[in-house]
Amino acid sequence: MERIAVDMDGVLADTTEQFFLFDERDFGRRRTLEEVIGKPESVAFPKGKEYVRTKDFFRTASVVSESQNILNELNRRYEIFVVSAATEFPQSLLEKYEWLREHFPFITWQQIVFCGSKTIVEADMMIDDHFKNLDPFKGTTFLFSQPHNLLQNEGRHRRVNSWKEIADILL
Amino acid sequence: MERIAVDMDGVLADTTEQFFLFDERDFGRRRTLEEVIGKPESVAFPKGKEYVRTKDFFRTASVVSESQNILNELNRRYEIFVVSAATEFPQSLLEKYEWLREHFPFITWQQIVFCGSKTIVEADMMIDDHFKNLDPFKGTTFLFSQPHNLLQNEGRHRRVNSWKEIADILL
Repeated sequence: MERIAVDMDGVLADTTEQFFLFDERDFGRRRTLEEVIGKPESVAFPKGKEYVRTKDFFRTASVVSESQNILNELNRRYEIFVVSAATEFPQSLLEKYEWLREHFPFITWQQIVFCGSKTIVEADMMIDDHFKNLDPFKGTTFLFSQPHNLLQNEGRHRRVNSWKEIADILL
Repeated sequence: MERIAVDMDGVLADTTEQFFLFDERDFGRRRTLEEVIGKPESVAFPKGKEYVRTKDFFRTASVVSESQNILNELNRRYEIFVVSAATEFPQSLLEKYEWLREHFPFITWQQIVFCGSKTIVEADMMIDDHFKNLDPFKGTTFLFSQPHNLLQNEGRHRRVNSWKEIADILL
């Protein structure tokens, strides 16, 4: 059974929307896509570095559209690991665990990986929104579109714009 | 640079001693080695399954002898990842992180992996006290002696009885 490493932030959890919401709360208006496109979130959102260390930032994130039902389907046909860079923000560890239990109850504790560098991950495929994770990965890569990666050429990675596109390819 | 995946419980953290201490507190006398040898901790210690879910069980564990200075040396010559099966006991996530920060401050967040199944780990070598982690691993394996694994033949794994032995082999 082929193994897929699935990223959490920006792929399952809509952290992009969290940045928009936290930012709007602080600055009084919703930032436009034009303002943030192509920029790391820590640059696009002036207080972005603070938000990821804020209690409940990860716990209250909404779920990326259609990720639940499609990951559930993938989970029957592939060996799924949810791999999240979490050790940089230790307060996020339990929040991310609880978030997964709530929104992806079919993902068991055996299938969860909280790490710093994803170079340790051995899998056949990786779905991620960050080049830093996809570039060193030896298997098949899918770049999940998020504003911060939209201006960069996808290079050797196949860009996917939605979970529906992932389903079309993998199911 | 060769990569080594180093287990935490029973290799860096003296969880065996924690089981002995918690058990003695509950049953009034220290269990003998003969009573626990060759048994999973959940069997050797009647309340073992409860202890691993008890606050501070992991946070207050003592450090395995000589692991600090020798891992520090290894960290200069190898790419080290500390890989701990932690997602089964989510309360342990932050405790384990804080324990590592206190006792192994030279291990960065990029080098920490909290997972369930270690089959996801790609490395050249693995140091672990559990066959379930070493058996599926493709690289070089070291079985770190603990009472629960002492009666089993080490099979294809090389048994190491102390960090000093690890140093003699790898440094």
